[in-house]
Amino acid sequence: MSSSYSTNLDRNAANFTPLTPLSFLNRANRVFGHRPAYVYGKTKRSWGEVFTRCKQFAAALNQVGIGKNDTVAFIAPNIPEAFEAQFAIAMAGAVVNPINIRLDAATIAYILEHGEAKALVTDSRFSGEVKAALAQLNNPDLLVIDILDQETDEPEGEALGSMDYEAFLQTADAENLENWQMPGDEWDAISLNYTSGTTSDPKGVVVHHRGAYLIAMGTIAAWPFTGAGKGKFPVHMYVVPLFHCNGWGHAWALAAMGGMSVLIRNITAKNLYDGIAEHGVTHFGGAPIVLSMLINAKEDEKKPFDWPIQVYTAAAPPPPSVLHAFKQAGFDLTHVYGLTETYGHVVECIEQEEWSGLSPDALAEMNSRQGVGYAVTEDVMVADPETMQPVPADGETMGEIMIRGNVVMKGYYRNKDATDACFAGGWFHSGDLAVMHPDGYLQIKDRSKDIIISGGENISSVEIEGILYKHPDVAAAAVVAKPDEKWGETPCAFVELRDGAETTEEAIIDFCRDNMARFKIPKTVIFQELPKTSTGKIQKFVLRDQLRD
Amino acid sequence: MSSSYSTNLDRNAANFTPLTPLSFLNRANRVFGHRPAYVYGKTKRSWGEVFTRCKQFAAALNQVGIGKNDTVAFIAPNIPEAFEAQFAIAMAGAVVNPINIRLDAATIAYILEHGEAKALVTDSRFSGEVKAALAQLNNPDLLVIDILDQETDEPEGEALGSMDYEAFLQTADAENLENWQMPGDEWDAISLNYTSGTTSDPKGVVVHHRGAYLIAMGTIAAWPFTGAGKGKFPVHMYVVPLFHCNGWGHAWALAAMGGMSVLIRNITAKNLYDGIAEHGVTHFGGAPIVLSMLINAKEDEKKPFDWPIQVYTAAAPPPPSVLHAFKQAGFDLTHVYGLTETYGHVVECIEQEEWSGLSPDALAEMNSRQGVGYAVTEDVMVADPETMQPVPADGETMGEIMIRGNVVMKGYYRNKDATDACFAGGWFHSGDLAVMHPDGYLQIKDRSKDIIISGGENISSVEIEGILYKHPDVAAAAVVAKPDEKWGETPCAFVELRDGAETTEEAIIDFCRDNMARFKIPKTVIFQELPKTSTGKIQKFVLRDQLRD
Repeated sequence: MSSSYSTNLDRNAANFTPLTPLSFLNRANRVFGHRPAYVYGKTKRSWGEVFTRCKQFAAALNQVGIGKNDTVAFIAPNIPEAFEAQFAIAMAGAVVNPINIRLDAATIAYILEHGEAKALVTDSRFSGEVKAALAQLNNPDLLVIDILDQETDEPEGEALGSMDYEAFLQTADAENLENWQMPGDEWDAISLNYTSGTTSDPKGVVVHHRGAYLIAMGTIAAWPFTGAGKGKFPVHMYVVPLFHCNGWGHAWALAAMGGMSVLIRNITAKNLYDGIAEHGVTHFGGAPIVLSMLINAKEDEKKPFDWPIQVYTAAAPPPPSVLHAFKQAGFDLTHVYGLTETYGHVVECIEQEEWSGLSPDALAEMNSRQGVGYAVTEDVMVADPETMQPVPADGETMGEIMIRGNVVMKGYYRNKDATDACFAGGWFHSGDLAVMHPDGYLQIKDRSKDIIISGGENISSVEIEGILYKHPDVAAAAVVAKPDEKWGETPCAFVELRDGAETTEEAIIDFCRDNMARFKIPKTVIFQELPKTSTGKIQKFVLRDQLRD
Repeated sequence: MSSSYSTNLDRNAANFTPLTPLSFLNRANRVFGHRPAYVYGKTKRSWGEVFTRCKQFAAALNQVGIGKNDTVAFIAPNIPEAFEAQFAIAMAGAVVNPINIRLDAATIAYILEHGEAKALVTDSRFSGEVKAALAQLNNPDLLVIDILDQETDEPEGEALGSMDYEAFLQTADAENLENWQMPGDEWDAISLNYTSGTTSDPKGVVVHHRGAYLIAMGTIAAWPFTGAGKGKFPVHMYVVPLFHCNGWGHAWALAAMGGMSVLIRNITAKNLYDGIAEHGVTHFGGAPIVLSMLINAKEDEKKPFDWPIQVYTAAAPPPPSVLHAFKQAGFDLTHVYGLTETYGHVVECIEQEEWSGLSPDALAEMNSRQGVGYAVTEDVMVADPETMQPVPADGETMGEIMIRGNVVMKGYYRNKDATDACFAGGWFHSGDLAVMHPDGYLQIKDRSKDIIISGGENISSVEIEGILYKHPDVAAAAVVAKPDEKWGETPCAFVELRDGAETTEEAIIDFCRDNMARFKIPKTVIFQELPKTSTGKIQKFVLRDQLRD
């Protein structure tokens, strides 16, 4: 319907710009040009220098014919080049495709093939698998650029490409530096992120400039991603891999805030404590495995700190006991939840003021829940995936977590069926099973595929794991379904013991009997080291395979 | 160009929602439903209650046929109804038109007529002018709703309408409460705000949902609009009138953060200090006149506080001496700049870390500048309006402040000529004259119309005023152009002296001679009280009229 409000009031160059984190970098150059963007070993670069290097990389790509909607793959840990890739490749109009450094050659080859990569930037320290992947791929047109990191003592590996990163930057003609591109539309893709694909081929999650901008603003508001006290300048330790949901979008948020990142190649307790002490870290995010690493560090690896450090933890739901110990160590922890399909964290466990009256244990239980949607997360519900009706908020009834809003991906790359399936009913289906508590906080009970169905009863493996973590001898635990003729499935517990601890299957089962309903007690307990992904998630599919074989 | 990135990756209900602050309120109800949204005298309401009242108001409007793209005018100070109007009217699909409570009947009638208001909600305390406006308007179809405030001792005034606000809320049918509307498009209008129009008829600034969402997020990131310390819950004292750029959009930002507003009908030093002490205020914004009011309050009106209070000040550039005294009083001040056309503040004086080494005077000089664009302000420049070329960043060359991005209005309502003129060259022309400093911070030198041209030299009235404010006897000063046969114009200073102070025209001129270039010295000094607008801006056009008459 036409009205005075829609007449002569159209979009124009003065009042409309596509939302994109590239605007944050452009402004960071102007406003924070002299401030450090990252420090990596002895290398420290300002936002002005990073902006110039990104413009060089974008120009160099354009000069070899790589541009709009071309995929540029990237294999590197959290080093300067990977940080710059979050901006530089989009500035060429292209799409960054960060690949997990711990993948095998076949999977790397699959991603390069399926993602239609035109270029690959690869850290020479990973040349073994990458060389094998390139041999399988057999794509002589692929432009390969090597990163030859000078800040590490690790063996150099093999240069596989036509040029190294620094030399490639130098190929940029000065006259092209200002030709970097804003997206034509905020719906344009900014990144292609393959999920780990435990049951099938990896799926390529396509995210766009609009969502990248909004997830950054949402994180700033929620964490909050500001400095300690009045200071507006956060110091962020990059523990979350930049190949994992674009490092949850923190590089983009930091450009908006003029903050600094501490980049670390190898995530060890010593490196983390050193980074905290040397640079005055105020923020980092990490999987629960990182929290455990910090808590269980040797005393001579620990460094004291006396300022607030805000920590986000995501991935597997951390047991309350781990949350509690971590807070005791002086870290201010917030539990968040999200998926690659949602640009990372879109649910946070906001600590309400009235919780301050709770006992430490009760508070840890509250904080172990995943929580509520961010301000930028339009809507989250726990619902029956068949009827799409929300489950009652009783803390008991399980349903699937559904998310919708501007921080949900465009869809899966070249995979219409999977895209249509995951968006059925107008919500993104997370595949995670949860309950909704009466206060509106959701809590994950399991991945759909991790639920154990025994004698017709649904058993949450996460719930059993939470109990196991309370046992003093248990360092890590994972519970999976074991096929069973009588019950269909029964819970099987895989347990990793603390250094020097000794216990028995019977003792663990007795402990469970005292702490859970009878039908949930694991029928089997196996002591062994647990297989984990590069981001600290325990690989339950490996354990399931082990049981099957 | 079609590519795999634009195939089967379209917008759908799961991954796209129009940006609107209504999403913040909807979430505040779910996440902060039990937390206070505002306190006003003895009235305190939670976000859950505010959401319900907004749904009631929206339903009641819809039930009388007011909806999509209809204008609903609002005349009230910062009381609960004005706060709710920032959401409720948009939830009906309509457009709120907040009108300055201090306007005269003729101007109110003009706005109601030009804005095509279908309804008017009006505080009975302003019934004198409003009644006269309605008589001039002669629109019997206009729905008039009275606000009958019970929290004030002021004389009640006259009820002019068919119903009062609370009774109107009760007309909402329960079955309609969930029919409130999200905008069909984020470009839809959310508010119509008339500028004060010192030289011509008021112009109606149309702002949209997308910009309202983004200005809120930008403010949260920049201020930052979080609680003191870890707390995510700001306590905001609403000093900025809600009829002025929608109270700079703070109600929207507070919904995103679950913060509380302290609402105050009459802005007096006593009321402000009482509000700070009683509610633990962490944030407020206000014109420089408010800062002066707080600094110059009687000792028995002041209340101590020992926590950080973040203060934004905007409007007329505050002299460095006022900034300095205000910081001395314990307020943490940030200088911001913006216009009704930019949803309020879009430029902020970010205090860089290296400034901490400056002397108090030097720091005050740095902080008296308007600064740099927000993260959500796409671009700001100081340019020659003829050539659109940026002026050199030399701190000397004057140009016009130009702004572009998503927090620039749609345009002026029913005024294509003014819209086209202000967007000429793809930038919004602010009408404010400034210099750009070498560090990228801009500083306002004058409104275009306030510049004094004497013997061919441009003289900044703001610069002379800054000197006058340093004189110990001067409480307020305004310099305007006085027509002069020989020089064209000469500077004329209007000066308001401090209580009990005595000085002479010669003494003031001598003081100027010691502090500025000869050609800038005022030729005339007139001692009198200065005329001010409701928002504390000195009304130079009144002084100019005085000189002419």
